Amino acid sequence: MSERIWTAALVVIGDEILSGRTQDKNVAQLASWLNVQGIRLAEVRIVADVEDAIVEAVNTLRARNDYLFTTGGIGPTHDDITVDAIAAALSIGVEVHPDARAILERYYETRGGLTEARLRMARVPSGATLIENRVSGAPGIRIGNIFVMAGVPHITAGMLDALTGTLEGGRPVRSATLGCWVAESEVADTLRSVEKDHRGDGGEVSIGSYPFFRDGRTGANFVVRSPDPERLEACVADLATRLADLGYPTTRDGI
Amino acid sequence: MSERIWTAALVVIGDEILSGRTQDKNVAQLASWLNVQGIRLAEVRIVADVEDAIVEAVNTLRARNDYLFTTGGIGPTHDDITVDAIAAALSIGVEVHPDARAILERYYETRGGLTEARLRMARVPSGATLIENRVSGAPGIRIGNIFVMAGVPHITAGMLDALTGTLEGGRPVRSATLGCWVAESEVADTLRSVEKDHRGDGGEVSIGSYPFFRDGRTGANFVVRSPDPERLEACVADLATRLADLGYPTTRDGI
Repeated sequence: MSERIWTAALVVIGDEILSGRTQDKNVAQLASWLNVQGIRLAEVRIVADVEDAIVEAVNTLRARNDYLFTTGGIGPTHDDITVDAIAAALSIGVEVHPDARAILERYYETRGGLTEARLRMARVPSGATLIENRVSGAPGIRIGNIFVMAGVPHITAGMLDALTGTLEGGRPVRSATLGCWVAESEVADTLRSVEKDHRGDGGEVSIGSYPFFRDGRTGANFVVRSPDPERLEACVADLATRLADLGYPTTRDGI
Repeated sequence: MSERIWTAALVVIGDEILSGRTQDKNVAQLASWLNVQGIRLAEVRIVADVEDAIVEAVNTLRARNDYLFTTGGIGPTHDDITVDAIAAALSIGVEVHPDARAILERYYETRGGLTEARLRMARVPSGATLIENRVSGAPGIRIGNIFVMAGVPHITAGMLDALTGTLEGGRPVRSATLGCWVAESEVADTLRSVEKDHRGDGGEVSIGSYPFFRDGRTGANFVVRSPDPERLEACVADLATRLADLGYPTTRDGI
């Protein structure tokens, strides 16, 4: 039985990532969170703080995925253009959201008041709803299947926390890891063959091979992924047996 | 005077990045290396180990950038499909490169010999040349404006090292940072205005604002970027003066 696979894409918006100044953490964070929601992160694009680039990425990816997330560019400064770019992508206007304005008024009451620049953070594409920001003032934004999140990872984490359990998904993708002190090239044929035997018609099982070199020795972790717990365990058991038969015992949960 | 801007794009190939298992480090590493070569990293796509996805990303990005880099998927196992995908993107065949074969034969001479699986790492799109791998056996690949690199960051670092100084670029983008204990929203107008005064016709100067919260205090680093050292310094000096006039002294090199 093949089941519906729910997918999401992410557009990371920010010159600071493309310049190498900042190490992105939102890809891994969103990917892990989506797995638990039963949604697969299918593709990511990292684009500059340039409206045309954002519009192109947003329009391509929102059309072919169930959900589209963006991170970055929703602060109060001139280089924060995400809201305008999303509105342009959707050919709609921008408005000040009354609830966002109220949240910011409260947040800045003891922090110098709501200035014109700060009020920029209450602007949303027309018709959007808010995503709670449990960490700082400015909320995230939802419009259609688009989720506009902060760039700062711990603020994004709070927004994802607020969204947990609210998005429809499929079964979570589970994974299991077998670690082995072997050069992956020694067992490449076995990996290919075991994956072929278990993958099913819809590619429900996959095996990834991740080599490493540690303490002067060569090893690899083999990660088996599937939304189907039974298929997953059958594949893991078969792989462990066949590697052991070749003289390579494996360690569950990896090395 | 507006000068030619050289751009590159990166396609990160790997289910392990999209699943959240592995934190990518190649985006930041390549971005920093490109800066020194005078080439701007203009866009990044992270795609799954799926040929169609790789082909689409490679063909779109190689056409509109001076250089295209890929990372990942050049190992010996079944999930390493980058070479075939690049060949498909270019509508050319795949061949075993004699020099790559010789390198692998030497490398594996004392490591169990060159098996069929290992020989996969000598396969290149027809007509490609090799990029030296100073860390492990399998070389990177250059074909046209495409540079095919390893996924493991320290191996990629060695390949970049081998390419240093060989790619034509423009002037390196320089940056300078002013750190300030201020909420960025307090000075958003000043940032916008200073950038406008200095950016020039070709956008030669940009200012990024990166807020942080540390030791119970709010601050921000303002990063000024330009390939023109004189413009850069003029902008930094002006920004420092105007922030100081507002009562916000800044620290060179950031906080």
